Amino acid sequence: MYKEKDFDIIVVGAGHAGCEAATACAKMGLSTALFTIYLDTIAQLSCNPAIGGLAKGHLVREIDALGGIMAKVTDMSGIQFRMLNRSKGPAVWSLRAQADRILYNVHMRKLLEATENLAIKQAMVEEIVVENGRVKGVITSLGVFYGAKAVIVTPGTFLNGLIHIGLDSFEAGRAGEFPSKRLSESLKKLGLKIGRLKTGTPPRIDAKTIDFSKTEEQWGDFPPPAFSYSTEEITNPQVPCYITYTNERTHEIILNNLDRSPLYSGKIKGIGPRYCPSIEDKVVKFREKPRHQIFLEPEGLSRKEYYANGIPTSLPYDVQIAFVRTIPGLEEAEIMRPGYAIEYDFVYPTQINHTLEVKGIEGLYLAGQINGTSGYEEAAAQGLMAGINAALKIKGKAPLILGRDEAYIGVLIDDLVTKGTQEPYRMFTSRAEFRLLLRHDNADLRLREYGYRIGLVDEETYEKFLKKKQALEKEIKRLKTTIIKPSEQLNKALTEVGTTPIEEAISLDKILKRPEVTYEFIKKFAPSQENLTREIEELVEIHIKYEGYIAKQLEQVERMKQFEEKVIPADFDFNLPGLSKEVIQKLNEVRPRTIGQAMRIPGVTPAAISILMVAVQKGAGSKK
Amino acid sequence: MYKEKDFDIIVVGAGHAGCEAATACAKMGLSTALFTIYLDTIAQLSCNPAIGGLAKGHLVREIDALGGIMAKVTDMSGIQFRMLNRSKGPAVWSLRAQADRILYNVHMRKLLEATENLAIKQAMVEEIVVENGRVKGVITSLGVFYGAKAVIVTPGTFLNGLIHIGLDSFEAGRAGEFPSKRLSESLKKLGLKIGRLKTGTPPRIDAKTIDFSKTEEQWGDFPPPAFSYSTEEITNPQVPCYITYTNERTHEIILNNLDRSPLYSGKIKGIGPRYCPSIEDKVVKFREKPRHQIFLEPEGLSRKEYYANGIPTSLPYDVQIAFVRTIPGLEEAEIMRPGYAIEYDFVYPTQINHTLEVKGIEGLYLAGQINGTSGYEEAAAQGLMAGINAALKIKGKAPLILGRDEAYIGVLIDDLVTKGTQEPYRMFTSRAEFRLLLRHDNADLRLREYGYRIGLVDEETYEKFLKKKQALEKEIKRLKTTIIKPSEQLNKALTEVGTTPIEEAISLDKILKRPEVTYEFIKKFAPSQENLTREIEELVEIHIKYEGYIAKQLEQVERMKQFEEKVIPADFDFNLPGLSKEVIQKLNEVRPRTIGQAMRIPGVTPAAISILMVAVQKGAGSKK
Repeated sequence: MYKEKDFDIIVVGAGHAGCEAATACAKMGLSTALFTIYLDTIAQLSCNPAIGGLAKGHLVREIDALGGIMAKVTDMSGIQFRMLNRSKGPAVWSLRAQADRILYNVHMRKLLEATENLAIKQAMVEEIVVENGRVKGVITSLGVFYGAKAVIVTPGTFLNGLIHIGLDSFEAGRAGEFPSKRLSESLKKLGLKIGRLKTGTPPRIDAKTIDFSKTEEQWGDFPPPAFSYSTEEITNPQVPCYITYTNERTHEIILNNLDRSPLYSGKIKGIGPRYCPSIEDKVVKFREKPRHQIFLEPEGLSRKEYYANGIPTSLPYDVQIAFVRTIPGLEEAEIMRPGYAIEYDFVYPTQINHTLEVKGIEGLYLAGQINGTSGYEEAAAQGLMAGINAALKIKGKAPLILGRDEAYIGVLIDDLVTKGTQEPYRMFTSRAEFRLLLRHDNADLRLREYGYRIGLVDEETYEKFLKKKQALEKEIKRLKTTIIKPSEQLNKALTEVGTTPIEEAISLDKILKRPEVTYEFIKKFAPSQENLTREIEELVEIHIKYEGYIAKQLEQVERMKQFEEKVIPADFDFNLPGLSKEVIQKLNEVRPRTIGQAMRIPGVTPAAISILMVAVQKGAGSKK
Repeated sequence: MYKEKDFDIIVVGAGHAGCEAATACAKMGLSTALFTIYLDTIAQLSCNPAIGGLAKGHLVREIDALGGIMAKVTDMSGIQFRMLNRSKGPAVWSLRAQADRILYNVHMRKLLEATENLAIKQAMVEEIVVENGRVKGVITSLGVFYGAKAVIVTPGTFLNGLIHIGLDSFEAGRAGEFPSKRLSESLKKLGLKIGRLKTGTPPRIDAKTIDFSKTEEQWGDFPPPAFSYSTEEITNPQVPCYITYTNERTHEIILNNLDRSPLYSGKIKGIGPRYCPSIEDKVVKFREKPRHQIFLEPEGLSRKEYYANGIPTSLPYDVQIAFVRTIPGLEEAEIMRPGYAIEYDFVYPTQINHTLEVKGIEGLYLAGQINGTSGYEEAAAQGLMAGINAALKIKGKAPLILGRDEAYIGVLIDDLVTKGTQEPYRMFTSRAEFRLLLRHDNADLRLREYGYRIGLVDEETYEKFLKKKQALEKEIKRLKTTIIKPSEQLNKALTEVGTTPIEEAISLDKILKRPEVTYEFIKKFAPSQENLTREIEELVEIHIKYEGYIAKQLEQVERMKQFEEKVIPADFDFNLPGLSKEVIQKLNEVRPRTIGQAMRIPGVTPAAISILMVAVQKGAGSKK
């Protein structure tokens, strides 16, 4: 075996998790190598060409606030940006973008190549070398050993990937690319418990054969809003998506061919994503539904290929052709690439810590689909945190673990390591108990400070952030301290917007709290002397309007913190009298860091928590 | 098996041959399907990111003149254009361009997608269906049958591709992509004799780790000359290449590790390209040479990756690292992708006709590396001709077979089908007996007419060509008919450029014929009244200067034509009394169309030709 040079950190896989991990480590000053099976498909959008959406958009903003790269690359390659939930008020807004697949690759690679301390190599990593519970490096398929203090594994669907189209199946990482076949074996040998998941993708259609006149056109916002706090302007041409629907005939064809479905014939063993089911799944489970929506998403500005979002399928190719051609606008459709399902290995995530380090193996980190998640954004978020924590550990610094009250990223990781998952885990706003704190608009207010402290946010960006924060606080203070007197003009305007006139002097924030009153309204009668951006005005409005609710959530956070601060010693022996065998087993599996985390383990009862709490307070249970 | 729709023509493989074939067929009005294993790597430049060069550049110009696409795509994606042989006078010039790999893919795909009648599909074709000596269609790995009147097979290195790096080997079409494993079996079953070839590619280096100050910078021409007659202007930013050299230390490392070379250990069975040997081959065969040149070619504008042209290798990765780091400028080099050798199947090309149709299987055409050639340009040229001839045949029209006196494409195909090849065939100017006729500058004058007649050159382009041709002829006529009288000024100028003064009136062409006199010179004393382009001025100069030589070559062509016009009946029985067994076997293998072709078959003696000629004239030998 040939020993090549050592790196501080090696990242295995250059998808969304790997790219974030590698750039974070390199930017934090550590010599980093990023290994990929195929250099030409770095950061490939394997599934639909879109980033963000509800909760996922929040993750992207959080990644940006911490100093990650996904938001910037999306802004550079985006060809449609749409703020979702606009009808519901800014507190629940979330951004979604269509990306040009090629531009996404090009810009990501450009950014990686411009990163100092980062070497990018085309190689298949087949073995993680561990000695005495500590990572030593990796070995590639060419028998080359690279030493490292930490290894971050981000293989996506490539880990023993197996593609299904009808009853045909073949090994692949994704369509057209080699799978990673030995790495999984190496992880098993290290004692990790490996499971099997499944995901799917729809057919892609030749634009020349789509009758767009039979579909609904959907454009994004103008001007397009950006994901990154650092983006000044979105400069790519913007294009529409198109909406169409399946119908009874579509469903009939699908139902008539279930015997040739690998999903229903039992050929696929892995568990699929509950919230992104295949069309055959949707048709079977929602038999009463007469139609399902399809988004025809452009693959990019230079390509005439459309991604038929909404009909992922592993049915045989002929069935795909038949059912696609029942859909309005697709009667003459030519499929350029068939849809398929892919099964891949994952590691049950209760085997990792909040830092994404594998329990009991120092320096081995896992991020992305290998931890049971689904989605580019979930992967990128984990990649970033794994990168940050691997780097912090090597530098001898305390880890960065985001709380459930601080970030969706915190919720994501805490859910994974505490609750585990048996199926592809996707982020939803409903997974967060403090939704009103974790808004799309305030990701930087929540996380910029961390990003700066660990060295991922540069001085200039941080200064800009501080100025924004000061301006925001100043304006909130002004609204709270500026008293306005009743006047004929003001009261007329208040009546016009549908609220009652005021009878005595009142602070501006009290008026703004009224549902009918907007910041624009306040501006007319008592404008700020500062030149405030629209962003700050929106933030001020949200802050004032939701102040009461936010205060209540903050109280809840405080209550939760009591438990989060009750740390359980790392070597605590959960074998306590009074606890059931099941509870002891679960506690041993997860090994919660705090009482708060223990409370979130499914199946751990309030009675068990009381016993645990008493034991921890007494100092009992510790092996020392 | 599911039967999908029929096409007129199916092209298998979307490399340089496949893209030309598919667009030609579609533009000639036939419904065409182009199948590729991976849609994201259409027209991938698998080897170095450059198009053209000596003889190859001629092929590109000829492709353009006929209405093919390679020249246009190169112009759109080129980042350095350099006219080679500038020091030697325009008759032997040849253009070479560095291309941006990604832009090449993007523009080719854009062009394909904009082509009417052309469907592009991601699928692995595994079987060619033939019934009663006639192609019926293809079957894909998903068991789908597509019917077709003609099938053009262009698999490049994918046909049973096997990559070697040191003594490791793995199946692949090229690094990172699946091979085509069943198709070769299908061709064998059809009775084709299959051989094995090998080619190689060098390591690619991270620009961040190259010390360019130790290399020589080499820029292209400004303004950059275009390949296509239709390109108005090259608009991409232009960048340099860098030149460095191997040295004794490099060679020592290589020689010390030959036991770990798959080439020298006998692991590789396929025959490699004689004129593009691996660095280990060069070091072994030219032991006296102290150094070999390396061109560091940029992979593209957006990438920081350099292709180390000159050191293709299949040595183990560690040896690659070691010898690369002995090279000036590469002392700290990080290899992004290792070099490798690839073995692949090919079809002995004497089994095909001048139309590239397989003998005895109607409608089955082969083009590119499968016919034993090497090089993008050779592949594209064959793809175009296979496409044209498949389309012409379906339309019931006469085939287009270019003569050896008309085009390098004619030389290429005639060489392949007449002489066959045992090693990767590359085009050289020395392969053409009528080099002075087959110039880079006059490809349109030679071939535009054909392109227009078969429908690949549109009306507007053709009109433009006719105007250019007229202007050229007019100017030549003017130079021949305009008489200039001696004058003090003229004679002074003639003396200054180093030639003798004239003493009596003389036609302009006679002055221009003098080696010292340029068209620029003539222009000063007797300018044309037309607004001639630089291109026409160059053409005029070449025409006048080489008139005598050209006339001689044309005479030779006439002599050759006598034999080319002596057609041998398709069913001719070569089993003639007086011919040796060996000659009969060779004649039967090639089945020459004409006496001329028979004369070029290696091993067929002049005596044998005499016997053959007599027999053909007598009408003997025909089975009818």
